[in-house]
Amino acid sequence: MSLMIVGSMAFDALETPFGKVDRIIGGSATYAAWAASNFTQPIKQVSIVGGDFPQDEMDALTARGVDMEGVEVVKDGKSFFWSGRYHMDMNTRDTLVTELNVLGQFNPQLPASYQDCEFLMLGNLAPAVQISVINQLQKRPKLIIMDTMNFWMEIALDELKQAISMVDVLMVNDSEARQLSGEFSLVKAAKKIQAMGPKFLIIKKGEHGALLFHGKQVFFAPALPLEEVFDPTGAGDTFAGGFIGHISRTKDISFENMKTGIIVGSAMASFCVEKFGPNRLKELKQEEIDARIDEFVELVNFDISIIS
Amino acid sequence: MSLMIVGSMAFDALETPFGKVDRIIGGSATYAAWAASNFTQPIKQVSIVGGDFPQDEMDALTARGVDMEGVEVVKDGKSFFWSGRYHMDMNTRDTLVTELNVLGQFNPQLPASYQDCEFLMLGNLAPAVQISVINQLQKRPKLIIMDTMNFWMEIALDELKQAISMVDVLMVNDSEARQLSGEFSLVKAAKKIQAMGPKFLIIKKGEHGALLFHGKQVFFAPALPLEEVFDPTGAGDTFAGGFIGHISRTKDISFENMKTGIIVGSAMASFCVEKFGPNRLKELKQEEIDARIDEFVELVNFDISIIS
Repeated sequence: MSLMIVGSMAFDALETPFGKVDRIIGGSATYAAWAASNFTQPIKQVSIVGGDFPQDEMDALTARGVDMEGVEVVKDGKSFFWSGRYHMDMNTRDTLVTELNVLGQFNPQLPASYQDCEFLMLGNLAPAVQISVINQLQKRPKLIIMDTMNFWMEIALDELKQAISMVDVLMVNDSEARQLSGEFSLVKAAKKIQAMGPKFLIIKKGEHGALLFHGKQVFFAPALPLEEVFDPTGAGDTFAGGFIGHISRTKDISFENMKTGIIVGSAMASFCVEKFGPNRLKELKQEEIDARIDEFVELVNFDISIIS
Repeated sequence: MSLMIVGSMAFDALETPFGKVDRIIGGSATYAAWAASNFTQPIKQVSIVGGDFPQDEMDALTARGVDMEGVEVVKDGKSFFWSGRYHMDMNTRDTLVTELNVLGQFNPQLPASYQDCEFLMLGNLAPAVQISVINQLQKRPKLIIMDTMNFWMEIALDELKQAISMVDVLMVNDSEARQLSGEFSLVKAAKKIQAMGPKFLIIKKGEHGALLFHGKQVFFAPALPLEEVFDPTGAGDTFAGGFIGHISRTKDISFENMKTGIIVGSAMASFCVEKFGPNRLKELKQEEIDARIDEFVELVNFDISIIS
């Protein structure tokens, strides 16, 4: 009974208005596992890396209760590499380099020990890979959450729609929700996307927070107003990891509990952006997480009894 | 003991992706008075209009408990006119025409009966006019809230800073907060602006909600996710009117009560955008306002007890 996370483990090179790093650990599954492991263990990791991926990074995840049996190491291959430059608003970025490397041949074969997974997070990957993972599971997980991006809407829309039809929760950002639905209004977009299959839709709006839609219900969580957003890379994957980590720990897939999961994810994302890469996530203490969640309560809590 | 509202009463011509109107009632004081009069009466209105301003619009406000003694009517003058075109995102707009007309000579002389005002809202106007109103009051109101815009930062920064130093609550949008402070981070901007005088700062972010800063405290209220934003004109003034209307009704200027005021303002703004001009505000029933505020509670309410 555990959480399975499927996604990339990679190197990133980043430029932000606050600094520059040439080669730092990244990848959707890396961020998600670091975030989720605060709430649930073991985590069954599914990814692919080259021989250049540092063993001590693998070991650090193992020490956090992340099972690496499903991480394929291509000894003579190179890990996925992405390089980008953020603009001042930190919500827009230019991709400078994308080298798929071993990720281009990613065709995961799930270990037998992964078959008992109860919760499944599909990080942003080729829709065909996401479909393949779902199809390999003999028993459907209690909840499948999937992330994707505009790139797949442009080059693999049919496969993407098939993948979307197979999951319970889809997570996209606001511009992707608009692109996928053809609707500018996020409320209208949410209706159309839910009609594609997922009963739950999370729309991430970066510094403007996140929305959770389910039928006619909607929940909003703000992002924490921060003095400095140092590096937004991985914030979305960290948000997803915090969300599904909370759901896995509580084993409660109600809308009410997902609302709390969105807050947990938002709190984890607010840590992620404080340092380059997943560094802030690695050093987090439980007391810091509790205090940050309390900040969210303060941020949105108001007294309705005064009104009427 | 009452609320005084100072601002423009005007005509607008508007184009949105959903339609077009050539000449409709507008102005910051108009929107604010319609919103605030749901919560507090009488309201002492201070404005200036030309002979072209419809008497039935004045009468409609009078019937809502808005005292028009402080509204100067320049019989042979024309009312302030603004014309604009909104883009698809409804957050950006082009000004097509600005005709100051009688607003260019606005030099309000407060009626004696206005001296007992307990709460003062200064809508967006020339800072010199805002300062003059404050200086005419023999007794300082319990709370002064002021709106402004980037235009005054560009042509009258010194006077604007003087006006800002005289008020308790400043209300600006996010880009104006950045321009005024020279800081991109809204948290840093809030610190700098509070150092200019106002103990409270409200930063409006349109469809992304609003932030209230006070010392180290911060509160966030989302905008209600809507299927359609028909016309955002006046939403900020309506928000301000709802906020100060709630404060005036409760006579409580604590941070806690201001949080509730922000929610009330957000609810009123969510009505404003549903139709052209102030039309939706004019027809509002108390039950609709209560139901809308309940929607905000649903939107942000989550159960923290699940987490730990």
